[in-house]
Amino acid sequence: VSLRFHFDFISPYAYLGWLRMPALAERVGRPLEPVPVLFAALLDRWGQLGPAEIAPKRAYTYKHALRLAHDQGVPLVPPPAHPFNPLLALRVASLSRGFDERRRIIDALYRACWGGGPGVDNPATVARALDEAGLAGAALVEEATTPAVKARLREQTDRAIADGVFGVPTVIVDGELFWGQDALPHVERFVAGADPIDPAHLASVRAMPASATRPGSARPHSDDGSRSPA
Amino acid sequence: VSLRFHFDFISPYAYLGWLRMPALAERVGRPLEPVPVLFAALLDRWGQLGPAEIAPKRAYTYKHALRLAHDQGVPLVPPPAHPFNPLLALRVASLSRGFDERRRIIDALYRACWGGGPGVDNPATVARALDEAGLAGAALVEEATTPAVKARLREQTDRAIADGVFGVPTVIVDGELFWGQDALPHVERFVAGADPIDPAHLASVRAMPASATRPGSARPHSDDGSRSPA
Repeated sequence: VSLRFHFDFISPYAYLGWLRMPALAERVGRPLEPVPVLFAALLDRWGQLGPAEIAPKRAYTYKHALRLAHDQGVPLVPPPAHPFNPLLALRVASLSRGFDERRRIIDALYRACWGGGPGVDNPATVARALDEAGLAGAALVEEATTPAVKARLREQTDRAIADGVFGVPTVIVDGELFWGQDALPHVERFVAGADPIDPAHLASVRAMPASATRPGSARPHSDDGSRSPA
Repeated sequence: VSLRFHFDFISPYAYLGWLRMPALAERVGRPLEPVPVLFAALLDRWGQLGPAEIAPKRAYTYKHALRLAHDQGVPLVPPPAHPFNPLLALRVASLSRGFDERRRIIDALYRACWGGGPGVDNPATVARALDEAGLAGAALVEEATTPAVKARLREQTDRAIADGVFGVPTVIVDGELFWGQDALPHVERFVAGADPIDPAHLASVRAMPASATRPGSARPHSDDGSRSPA
């Protein structure tokens, strides 16, 4: 069963996670399936704000991502503007192709937004980023704007929400959800059958009641019986 | 200048961070200043939901914390109920005492909520947890419910918000804010003068404009000119 890697180009954490995924998938002997999703739709669904929507968290997130990129030994250069509209890039990344070509597409688009490129928020920059990777930029952009591809991105996002995805990057493997680039070592351990969580202990934790809730907190979707991810 | 460690007993990540702070402070040769803050008030201020307020994120957070505790080699056993009302425990932790006694108090209360104890959501359990650590539980609880101590917790929380604190644990040192237990290695490197962030690069990142915002997103406090933390 594959490692389903959910991402949006808008997230520097998803960028850092993506760069580590091919080697991780190879180490654990599982296919890697990239799943582009619209992060803004996840936020809408769960009534949550993104890191860029809270002033001090926005400032911190960029610094944190720069430090993590340094730790990981990879470049991280933000795009000219952020947040930006990632829809076209997500649709191109959702095109039906073999894994190798999808990886080249996603690598090219990530370089354009977090690797020092001109961003991916308009068709010309997206096409050029693809051209520079030896792909047929204009044709891919044209195909990505068809109704079928737009629907595919919506369906991927809806399914992610149904699976309990609330942020990016998120890996789902064998029904278990892992959120955040910092959880990738936990993914690897889980696939190797060495997850340290005792199922009985976990069951008791999950049955734990709340004894206090925040007065007036808006929790529009916290009690609707959505399937929990595992 | 001290390492100001902002925490709320409600957060398992703050618990994991707290356990690492005394040794970290010793390694970098800085005093450690515990700063209890009410996490719910931070969420209110920034219009954010906490991890326990989004169903799939709540389920994930407990698992993630259990895995991190395993990695760190420390016990993590959630309290009988969560979320719970942490106010009394935060007030006891805010009492004016020398560092050694404050550390004993905070250790005792953390053991009661994340170390397998009965929680800290009522005066009897709080007093007993303190008694078991050789402290005068009943007297500390009584002192913690005075108006002066209630005001101190409010002031600590207000100052944290003014400093840009949006989550727990958060360390502030030399005007720089670090959020999350995963950022503690970055704190240590920063204090040693080895933060990898290039100030000129950072300045350009921080001046980066947004080219898209989420339609209809409620961002009540994202543009009010609050002082950014660094």
